[in-house]
Amino acid sequence: MNKKKKAVVMISGGMDSAVCVAITKEQGYDIAALHLNYGQKTQSKEMECFHKLATHFSAVDKLLVDVSHLAKIGGSSLTDENISIEKSTNTRKDNIPTSYVPFRNGNILAIAASWAEVIGAELLVIGAMQLDYSGYPDCREEFFEAMEKAINLGTKPETHLKISTPIINFTKGDVVRKGTELAVPFEYTWSCYASDDKACGKCDSCVLRLKGFAEANVNDPIQYL
Amino acid sequence: MNKKKKAVVMISGGMDSAVCVAITKEQGYDIAALHLNYGQKTQSKEMECFHKLATHFSAVDKLLVDVSHLAKIGGSSLTDENISIEKSTNTRKDNIPTSYVPFRNGNILAIAASWAEVIGAELLVIGAMQLDYSGYPDCREEFFEAMEKAINLGTKPETHLKISTPIINFTKGDVVRKGTELAVPFEYTWSCYASDDKACGKCDSCVLRLKGFAEANVNDPIQYL
Repeated sequence: MNKKKKAVVMISGGMDSAVCVAITKEQGYDIAALHLNYGQKTQSKEMECFHKLATHFSAVDKLLVDVSHLAKIGGSSLTDENISIEKSTNTRKDNIPTSYVPFRNGNILAIAASWAEVIGAELLVIGAMQLDYSGYPDCREEFFEAMEKAINLGTKPETHLKISTPIINFTKGDVVRKGTELAVPFEYTWSCYASDDKACGKCDSCVLRLKGFAEANVNDPIQYL
Repeated sequence: MNKKKKAVVMISGGMDSAVCVAITKEQGYDIAALHLNYGQKTQSKEMECFHKLATHFSAVDKLLVDVSHLAKIGGSSLTDENISIEKSTNTRKDNIPTSYVPFRNGNILAIAASWAEVIGAELLVIGAMQLDYSGYPDCREEFFEAMEKAINLGTKPETHLKISTPIINFTKGDVVRKGTELAVPFEYTWSCYASDDKACGKCDSCVLRLKGFAEANVNDPIQYL
């Protein structure tokens, strides 16, 4: 029997990473599901979605990591109670949003690389999108290329890891369309930064999610305030 | 009054990082002291040394981060109780030592970069040595160059971070000589992987430390079994 290739997939609990799991699974990989709690306000809701998604996609390995030092380091409205969550604006292209966690994807990929080396995975999958998240420097293709190089130079010679960003050039509408095509259970995903009961519908992340469902002409199954 | 430049220095509590703080301080930087507990067996001893060194070098910022997920991920004798600490051998050049923590320096530098961006530091200082630690892929110059590039691509445009590896080509003898020249309090440093009371004198790290003091013809002030 052929041993299946394994991919570490970063599953935040949002719809982007849910679609990434579905794409990776369809490519024939076994899923090693990685979730990070970095002290964000909605972490228990996101963790619940992570577990449901890991079960849905029959993950063969599962790892939860507490990276709440990112909250301690601060500097982001996601983790710092003193910085209020921004209402969505049209100035994202010019400004780094306050929900930016400094070098978050660098931290996530470093953890993923450590785990991948131990469990023998060969792919690190991250649901970054450079179009809709153009304000986040660690969501750009150039960053991922540089990080992949650093990871391969910093791990064992026999370790060869590729970073996969399957939705890097997707719009939120593309995410919903692709997820619908692959029967992703969007009811197991959460996007809101501000609330973990019903989604606020007003924060950057909610606005992007709603835009995606509207563009794809699909109903969002989660509840809003 | 001139505002001094700030450097994030990774202070493990070992003698290499202690000498790095002294070198960085002499270069005119204020010290932001970063220490990581990654679930190693000797962590309380190393933390004690970290605090003493931070005080000695008048650190202006101090951050402790729990990265015990590296213990959970496992794969290293430093953090995994099921892998015994290797006695020193002469085969280090050919084999990755069992004390290797997968992509440890990648994880450390990712955290350091996040913190540096928030506190406005411009230098990340790490006491890696590619000669004596040739078995660790994440201690090589090529790795640090690639990681520096990734960090600058993954942080804000106005953030410019340099990775400094001031002792990368030092031998352990050089470390002791330089530290002696700069009056580093070696009694506030710890190297042993196996014990946190008196040093074992037998693990890889003890053997390297003792070799360093012997080469420099200096007395090691710590106690051995």
